[in-house]
Amino acid sequence: MKNTFGNKLSFTIFGESHGEEIGIVLDGLKSGIKIDEEFIDHQLALRRPYGSIGTARVEKDAFRIVSGAFNGHTTGSPLTIIIPNENKKSSDYSDTRYIARPSHADYTAYVKYNGFEDYRGGGHFSGRITAALVAGASIVIPALKEEGIMIGTHIKKLGGICDREFDDPEKDIAFLNEEKFAVLDKKAQDAMISAIEEVAKEGDSIGGHLESAIIGMKPGFGEPFFDSLESLYSHALFSIPGIKGVSFSDAFENCLKRGSEFNDEFGIKDGKVVTSSNNNSGINGGISNGMPIVIKCAVKPTPSIFKDQKTIDMKDNKECTLSLKGRHDPAIIHRARVVVDSMLALVTYDVIS
Amino acid sequence: MKNTFGNKLSFTIFGESHGEEIGIVLDGLKSGIKIDEEFIDHQLALRRPYGSIGTARVEKDAFRIVSGAFNGHTTGSPLTIIIPNENKKSSDYSDTRYIARPSHADYTAYVKYNGFEDYRGGGHFSGRITAALVAGASIVIPALKEEGIMIGTHIKKLGGICDREFDDPEKDIAFLNEEKFAVLDKKAQDAMISAIEEVAKEGDSIGGHLESAIIGMKPGFGEPFFDSLESLYSHALFSIPGIKGVSFSDAFENCLKRGSEFNDEFGIKDGKVVTSSNNNSGINGGISNGMPIVIKCAVKPTPSIFKDQKTIDMKDNKECTLSLKGRHDPAIIHRARVVVDSMLALVTYDVIS
Amino acid sequence: MKNTFGNKLSFTIFGESHGEEIGIVLDGLKSGIKIDEEFIDHQLALRRPYGSIGTARVEKDAFRIVSGAFNGHTTGSPLTIIIPNENKKSSDYSDTRYIARPSHADYTAYVKYNGFEDYRGGGHFSGRITAALVAGASIVIPALKEEGIMIGTHIKKLGGICDREFDDPEKDIAFLNEEKFAVLDKKAQDAMISAIEEVAKEGDSIGGHLESAIIGMKPGFGEPFFDSLESLYSHALFSIPGIKGVSFSDAFENCLKRGSEFNDEFGIKDGKVVTSSNNNSGINGGISNGMPIVIKCAVKPTPSIFKDQKTIDMKDNKECTLSLKGRHDPAIIHRARVVVDSMLALVTYDVIS
Amino acid sequence: MKNTFGNKLSFTIFGESHGEEIGIVLDGLKSGIKIDEEFIDHQLALRRPYGSIGTARVEKDAFRIVSGAFNGHTTGSPLTIIIPNENKKSSDYSDTRYIARPSHADYTAYVKYNGFEDYRGGGHFSGRITAALVAGASIVIPALKEEGIMIGTHIKKLGGICDREFDDPEKDIAFLNEEKFAVLDKKAQDAMISAIEEVAKEGDSIGGHLESAIIGMKPGFGEPFFDSLESLYSHALFSIPGIKGVSFSDAFENCLKRGSEFNDEFGIKDGKVVTSSNNNSGINGGISNGMPIVIKCAVKPTPSIFKDQKTIDMKDNKECTLSLKGRHDPAIIHRARVVVDSMLALVTYDVIS
Repeated sequence: MKNTFGNKLSFTIFGESHGEEIGIVLDGLKSGIKIDEEFIDHQLALRRPYGSIGTARVEKDAFRIVSGAFNGHTTGSPLTIIIPNENKKSSDYSDTRYIARPSHADYTAYVKYNGFEDYRGGGHFSGRITAALVAGASIVIPALKEEGIMIGTHIKKLGGICDREFDDPEKDIAFLNEEKFAVLDKKAQDAMISAIEEVAKEGDSIGGHLESAIIGMKPGFGEPFFDSLESLYSHALFSIPGIKGVSFSDAFENCLKRGSEFNDEFGIKDGKVVTSSNNNSGINGGISNGMPIVIKCAVKPTPSIFKDQKTIDMKDNKECTLSLKGRHDPAIIHRARVVVDSMLALVTYDVIS
Repeated sequence: MKNTFGNKLSFTIFGESHGEEIGIVLDGLKSGIKIDEEFIDHQLALRRPYGSIGTARVEKDAFRIVSGAFNGHTTGSPLTIIIPNENKKSSDYSDTRYIARPSHADYTAYVKYNGFEDYRGGGHFSGRITAALVAGASIVIPALKEEGIMIGTHIKKLGGICDREFDDPEKDIAFLNEEKFAVLDKKAQDAMISAIEEVAKEGDSIGGHLESAIIGMKPGFGEPFFDSLESLYSHALFSIPGIKGVSFSDAFENCLKRGSEFNDEFGIKDGKVVTSSNNNSGINGGISNGMPIVIKCAVKPTPSIFKDQKTIDMKDNKECTLSLKGRHDPAIIHRARVVVDSMLALVTYDVIS
Repeated sequence: MKNTFGNKLSFTIFGESHGEEIGIVLDGLKSGIKIDEEFIDHQLALRRPYGSIGTARVEKDAFRIVSGAFNGHTTGSPLTIIIPNENKKSSDYSDTRYIARPSHADYTAYVKYNGFEDYRGGGHFSGRITAALVAGASIVIPALKEEGIMIGTHIKKLGGICDREFDDPEKDIAFLNEEKFAVLDKKAQDAMISAIEEVAKEGDSIGGHLESAIIGMKPGFGEPFFDSLESLYSHALFSIPGIKGVSFSDAFENCLKRGSEFNDEFGIKDGKVVTSSNNNSGINGGISNGMPIVIKCAVKPTPSIFKDQKTIDMKDNKECTLSLKGRHDPAIIHRARVVVDSMLALVTYDVIS
Repeated sequence: MKNTFGNKLSFTIFGESHGEEIGIVLDGLKSGIKIDEEFIDHQLALRRPYGSIGTARVEKDAFRIVSGAFNGHTTGSPLTIIIPNENKKSSDYSDTRYIARPSHADYTAYVKYNGFEDYRGGGHFSGRITAALVAGASIVIPALKEEGIMIGTHIKKLGGICDREFDDPEKDIAFLNEEKFAVLDKKAQDAMISAIEEVAKEGDSIGGHLESAIIGMKPGFGEPFFDSLESLYSHALFSIPGIKGVSFSDAFENCLKRGSEFNDEFGIKDGKVVTSSNNNSGINGGISNGMPIVIKCAVKPTPSIFKDQKTIDMKDNKECTLSLKGRHDPAIIHRARVVVDSMLALVTYDVIS
């Protein structure tokens, strides 16, 4: 199931960077979910590049819901959203057809598809396709909210600059979901934007860490082993181009602790089971325990940079030098944020269905 | 597919810590793979606790292949391996039936299964079930070797102690696969064993990082998006009890770099496409590029410790104190190593089938 | 996977009778398949109603391939075909919103989707959606032909009128695939068309049997048990609205025979293994044996008739009488023919991939 | 998923006719289902050959539930049942290793598995494996009964002999489920048994039709298209060795009718929606409408007969004559009955979960 994921809710994505249209099919939605087109627009806007830190390619994302909706609600049949590609300049790419861009999928696609791949702008490997995921998730996020579940993500670290920790998750999430550049601490936000502008000037790019929280999930969802919440969330997150690491509650640091420090002691607060710490990230044995699920993603720097790079000509099988031109993001982490939120929302909806 | 994973090769696991038998069904194996029962024994022995740093419970793992094998080879029909549980002491657990052990799945299982779960020794959530995965993977590891693919894992970090980096992956993997306590540097190994003995004396436990390498995979395997190699490997790895973080080639550090530092430049060596660095961990756009796939897992400290812990009585819904008795590992990371190798082998076999 | 089927090739359908667009996503196509848009048109035309025996609703089926194709070939990424609904008259249906049409899915959809279903023209249950299947299959049929596999279907029986048996399957299939009303015997064809015109005049409808042949499949495809060829083909065929029976080589008659009559004896002809009869329909143990796969489908009469029918008002939960108006087919079997071919082609492509 | 089927309940089967053990894994069972081992025995006994019309091979079917059960109830973890093969005589088969038995899977297995298949007694293709399905279904049948759902099957036709129609389905089902040779009409039963004894004397075999009814399923289960009830039931039924045709409510006859005769008019009886006839077999648009689901299966005559048959030696690729010896059933239809019931039960449980 290469481009389909999910059990009770399954979602299928399609499209290419410079193809006619991209889209998503959501199958397994409950009937009767109210569709909020303004909210879809709002979410798509969060993914769109902007200002001095964005690529020059801006898409309107004029989505159409072509099936599965009727009288403003989901019908229970597959809901399909189509987004046309409008601002594409294929001529930008034809010169470099056989030059494998480092850190991109040009070489692996060429091998896999025997040269038949749509190479323009990364084709099906492009981050462009994630717009469909964002649109699709915008259908289920309101339904999750009805169930008391909220999801939010901030840029925890960009290069050497850190944001503050989540403090009051509910308040923080509400704040982040309205922010275009999702950082909790204003100073850190300014510093990060400056850092991106700096690398942009140098024709370089930069990466970092995103941190997400899912709150309000009741205990008992997920499964031991292959449908563990960690398995399902990580599977979906690693599908996002550029994500190379996923950890639950800072696992790479926490796991170096002793058991007596790591273990989250159970207690009862206001009649509800809670834990004193949350090193297990709200998940025990693959199943939610009612505490926030906190996830960190490592997002690599944008592969496209304007510095000369050594690489190969795939057709002639010889080494050469690549000097990229065109329009590229110096960072994608601030745009990847809403894609991460969207993946988490789609998986969460699947899990609680 | 809660306890089944994989597409062309699908594997299904079953069993409980104190049930009669555990097992695995492998469906989709090629016919004609030679079965090496000594190798299965060898792999199971790597998972078994031993010496001063192990639990007192030692299982013989007297496995039986009950289907799918004939005249010493796979038949192409589902191959099933059954392993009896022999050394079980259920009486150890009955006192604490309703006491939720912190960092364990007792509470989440109780909520999910309404008290019908087999709670003895963690039931289906026990690491015991991973013995079946190890046995199953022992069928495919020789088949992978025939294809030139080798997999190995070392303890990269335990508490504050670090092993050296992979140097010559092929040689290092061959070395590790014969080691009971898989560390490349002898001094680091001694220090880690001492550290485990130390925490054991204190009734505590300790965790760390495993680092694996998959070498010899040809370019072109994997898919963009939901069947990306990162998605498939992480899905499987996060199914292993105790794993809370997965990264590809130290992603959490590497992603903080600039694009000009992170990007792996392509070149040609001996007529083969290679990259100068390997920050993408042998994977571009979800697809193998021919370089080693290097994966790091964060393994949490064993939840079972002998220090008093605050927790709850799930039946009475009130707080209490837990004083664990019985036999428990002060660390599982050295045993989890072969489980990680096994998961990687099973997924790799699926991907190249 | 409600609207997705297939393993190596998976296909996902979406849309409603009176929605904006219907479509199909094909995931798992090999790269480099030549796309023949004229052939897609040709196949869609076979499904379209026509002449005196068709509904008045005629769609242009102006399909667009919006992803997965580049320079006239498949890329290996998900290929999506979108077909707009143009000739829809929703006002035809609003009066009868809560009247359950007998033999239609109005009542079951109302129960399942709590009244949120798109009821216009049968919504997602409409045969209209099968146009997407026909378009999708038109991508793989040429690829099957390259492998020597051909598929064709005729109306074997309509009411009491029978077509002749397959004689020279290759020639018969070639003939049928160009016929709008697929019958091998000209007299039977005329009689069937007259019969349909007859029932149309009476405001009634009629059903029958389709018989298909798949020739050229090499031995060894398919699996024992759940991926048996019989299981896969029947699963797909029973998804087509109106199909209520599936048999392999006249099974309902043949199975009444004795083993000595039923068994297909093996022999060798021109160095190739063949059987003297074909009661097993080219399938032994779920796996192809190289002989033609012959499948019969029972297609029910079109549910929409213009005679008064007793039924219920679902909202008021009381009995009433339905007098249908609008445009409806007196028979769908001649249009279902190409849908059956399409399903068989999609499954066959999946199986041999 | 070759040997696994089902969505919310998935079941995986394994084993060979002459292997050590056969078995089934049921994943997705609710926790807390009471396990009735006597009922499992009862069901297995219905599948076992007996008396003058059975093979000489009788198995005790001494099953063991090795996981997923605790204190007499399901736990919610995968439940595995293992059945040893005890009465196997492999020497019976070695002589005919390369002789393809007509109507059996010897030839197709040889091609598919390159000679590595376990050929003894049909190996994984043997009806023997269906004992595991029967045992597995015996876990869910009581759970279905709690939901008001009952399933039963009779031999509708054997050669030329017909049983009577279902009359009072609930009573008929209750009667059939206690009968070893499931026929409603005593005279028909006697005639069928005599017919089997007759063909047995001649070294021949005989087939027929099974007819099943599922009653008590509430309206609203199933899906349009690929998860239609017809698709799911037929997929499972065609997995049973020997089944070559599946129809819903005599579709091959009913579909020849006119719409005005075929359509099932809706009405209300005791406040419940019912239909006046049941030509749609309780299913509209793939979804249950509350009426009985009536399914007919064509079961081919046992392939193993004692008359000489022409066939091929697969190794030498030349024609030869086969004279079968050993123990074989002159009919399997009376044993297949409980296998059909079991498949229907497993799919029904999946669908309503």
